[in-house]
Amino acid sequence: MKIKHVLESQQFTLPMLTELFERAREMEIVLKRGGTRDYDKKVMASLFYESGLLTRFSFESAMARLGGKVISTEHASKFFSSTPGDELEDTIRVVDDFCDVIVLRHNHIGGVKRAAAVSKCPIINAGDGKGGQHPTQALLDLYTIHKETNKLDGLRVAMVGDLAEGRTVRSLSYLLGKYERVKIYFVAPKSLQMKADMLSHFEENNVWFTLEENLHSVLPEVDVVYTTSIDRDRFSGSDDEYSKFKKEYYIDGNSLKLLHNKAIVMNPLSRDGEIAHEVDSDPRAAYFHQTQNGVIIRMALLAWVME
Amino acid sequence: MKIKHVLESQQFTLPMLTELFERAREMEIVLKRGGTRDYDKKVMASLFYESGLLTRFSFESAMARLGGKVISTEHASKFFSSTPGDELEDTIRVVDDFCDVIVLRHNHIGGVKRAAAVSKCPIINAGDGKGGQHPTQALLDLYTIHKETNKLDGLRVAMVGDLAEGRTVRSLSYLLGKYERVKIYFVAPKSLQMKADMLSHFEENNVWFTLEENLHSVLPEVDVVYTTSIDRDRFSGSDDEYSKFKKEYYIDGNSLKLLHNKAIVMNPLSRDGEIAHEVDSDPRAAYFHQTQNGVIIRMALLAWVME
Amino acid sequence: MKIKHVLESQQFTLPMLTELFERAREMEIVLKRGGTRDYDKKVMASLFYESGLLTRFSFESAMARLGGKVISTEHASKFFSSTPGDELEDTIRVVDDFCDVIVLRHNHIGGVKRAAAVSKCPIINAGDGKGGQHPTQALLDLYTIHKETNKLDGLRVAMVGDLAEGRTVRSLSYLLGKYERVKIYFVAPKSLQMKADMLSHFEENNVWFTLEENLHSVLPEVDVVYTTSIDRDRFSGSDDEYSKFKKEYYIDGNSLKLLHNKAIVMNPLSRDGEIAHEVDSDPRAAYFHQTQNGVIIRMALLAWVME
Repeated sequence: MKIKHVLESQQFTLPMLTELFERAREMEIVLKRGGTRDYDKKVMASLFYESGLLTRFSFESAMARLGGKVISTEHASKFFSSTPGDELEDTIRVVDDFCDVIVLRHNHIGGVKRAAAVSKCPIINAGDGKGGQHPTQALLDLYTIHKETNKLDGLRVAMVGDLAEGRTVRSLSYLLGKYERVKIYFVAPKSLQMKADMLSHFEENNVWFTLEENLHSVLPEVDVVYTTSIDRDRFSGSDDEYSKFKKEYYIDGNSLKLLHNKAIVMNPLSRDGEIAHEVDSDPRAAYFHQTQNGVIIRMALLAWVME
Repeated sequence: MKIKHVLESQQFTLPMLTELFERAREMEIVLKRGGTRDYDKKVMASLFYESGLLTRFSFESAMARLGGKVISTEHASKFFSSTPGDELEDTIRVVDDFCDVIVLRHNHIGGVKRAAAVSKCPIINAGDGKGGQHPTQALLDLYTIHKETNKLDGLRVAMVGDLAEGRTVRSLSYLLGKYERVKIYFVAPKSLQMKADMLSHFEENNVWFTLEENLHSVLPEVDVVYTTSIDRDRFSGSDDEYSKFKKEYYIDGNSLKLLHNKAIVMNPLSRDGEIAHEVDSDPRAAYFHQTQNGVIIRMALLAWVME
Repeated sequence: MKIKHVLESQQFTLPMLTELFERAREMEIVLKRGGTRDYDKKVMASLFYESGLLTRFSFESAMARLGGKVISTEHASKFFSSTPGDELEDTIRVVDDFCDVIVLRHNHIGGVKRAAAVSKCPIINAGDGKGGQHPTQALLDLYTIHKETNKLDGLRVAMVGDLAEGRTVRSLSYLLGKYERVKIYFVAPKSLQMKADMLSHFEENNVWFTLEENLHSVLPEVDVVYTTSIDRDRFSGSDDEYSKFKKEYYIDGNSLKLLHNKAIVMNPLSRDGEIAHEVDSDPRAAYFHQTQNGVIIRMALLAWVME
């Protein structure tokens, strides 16, 4: 199959996901051999309007392992010259002359789609705005789940934390909904629950889901606990409520006792106190494997769009 | 010919410009073949004291297409450690041990010349201060004009917008003045007209020019309309005057009707409302070709100074 | 010998220093030939929580001369996404999946050791906090001294300036103390003198040292004058005292008259008015040689830890 841009998780059909995972397995071999020189004449532009160091590093490492070169900005909105009239579309129409692929993080939902509409070269979405999409994170999460649990059909996943604002959870949920007999437990305080648009999407597509407030009752039921951090800013003026939620949705040694032997704990990192350090050494802690898989998935995607 | 530094457009004689354009044409072929590995052991330092993302990306893309490596700072003045006594000359004498060429943007006029005076390795001026020089922009503009109109002798060019402060216009005008029978129309409100030093230079060198306020009367006369943005900061306290000038020097579909079939519209990008989006799809819109030519000219210059 | 991390100057025994200098001499030859492609599949991460442009450029140039690739952040603490809970240890456990070596500058003493405790890949300390360590600077300083004076045993060194806070002086002093019959003159105003922990270390190890206030009486005695800048912030409210100290510990043409013919003047750059520009052209000025040697020593260290 061919893909031009990587914009949102919805664009990936099941056959595309199967192909991606095959490509990823090939890249695992490439990486084990120390990388390749195949793409040494290719140039990737990292165009980050909003910061995101680990995501940027993951993409740039992937490009380096492919042998390619990178031009990069950590915070594009600050480093433009003083001209106030900069427009995303103009910038893309300039930058697409400088490179073979643009990795774009934008600060507004829809920014990446606007960019793709005018770009001569492939665009990969590296996150666009709070509540927007972050498809490569979702793809690497899915790949991690597949590698660690060896199943996707019939998978039971708890999504925990700030589900209303979390773009990683949204993107991953979209992908999971494509598989058979998947059960998704959205576990969050009411004020942070998954938004109605996603729930409608699942209803229309006959995806099983449930909204839960109590994490501990869900833990014994699932194969995957996907945790995300709860932003202090969401609780302006109410430290008590914030602290209460942090405690209720905290994963520690006691939570692990409720969890299956083969279940896994995931987190898109960096964490903000939602997982105790004692969990790190448990074999079910998969969050540091996610970052390894991130390089692999991004190598596969970069190579794919540059074909 | 040999060149050590690229400091200002004045240093380029007609034979040098001819050689540069020949080198650029060779680089077009290199780029069409996907770049070269010839310079893979060379290192370029991007030392930007002032931001300028697109210029930096253009240089770094050029170096990457040559196969070379880049060390880079987006905003050197912020990223020095706390020592207050940093001096440009000391910095250059350190950085010239790290690389084979320094691409320098400095925040003061003359900064790049001071750097060149102490540097062991070639310096390329990527812009020095408001009203200073930006010679590579001028060279790529000249190359674009030559490619698009197929002439330089006898060329008629309208320079439009903030001519007093605009370094791209100054640098390009210097270069154009070297060709035969060139006519330059400086089109700007009186307060933003081209400064006296440039006008004296043209008088001494018998270059034809005229100062105009009315853009529409000039449009039918010229082969090139070179537009630049008018900075809101220039009109402190007077939004009315600013808005009036924006309107008077605006290029849109109506302006295009006044323009020759073979004339071209240029802009150093990013634009700030001086060109309507409806112009983008007109075959006379050359501003996105300028950025393509920027990589080519910078490849040619980088290779030249590293010889 | 094998080394995993480069964390502090104390870890280098005399045999290790001897091996490092042999490796450095080999790298001088590599560099004279224009660098190597041997490490073209390797990736270095520059992870700078605190700015330090010249140190970062020196490491990145070294990696480039080895043929390797770099992923880089100028100011990690600013460029993380908004998650407040970022922890150094988590970040390292993510970044070590992206690269083959991490060059880390951290803003707290001990940060680099914490990083090394969890990292799968080698860590090189590029400075950790005020008063902390900066071992590669010390190693390149030592290498410079050896190259320029052709001796280390029996060496007499004046350390001048802000010795209490200066991490470069602390690291270098540790190393010098390993050689035979070395004499160290700590020359500073009382309030900025070398701290007690270092002096105890020298007493325990029978290293000869003396505390001096008068620079001019020391100059005729030494082979090396190692100058550092005095931070204006140390003298809050007292510009007079600051100015007095700047004058007393200033190296100019008159100071050179007191100095041996073969003695050298060093400075970790960038300087802040502690050395007059008239000194730059004196053959005894070694500070710009230090930065050349920095690339060589860092090439040797990078290659060593990546073995």
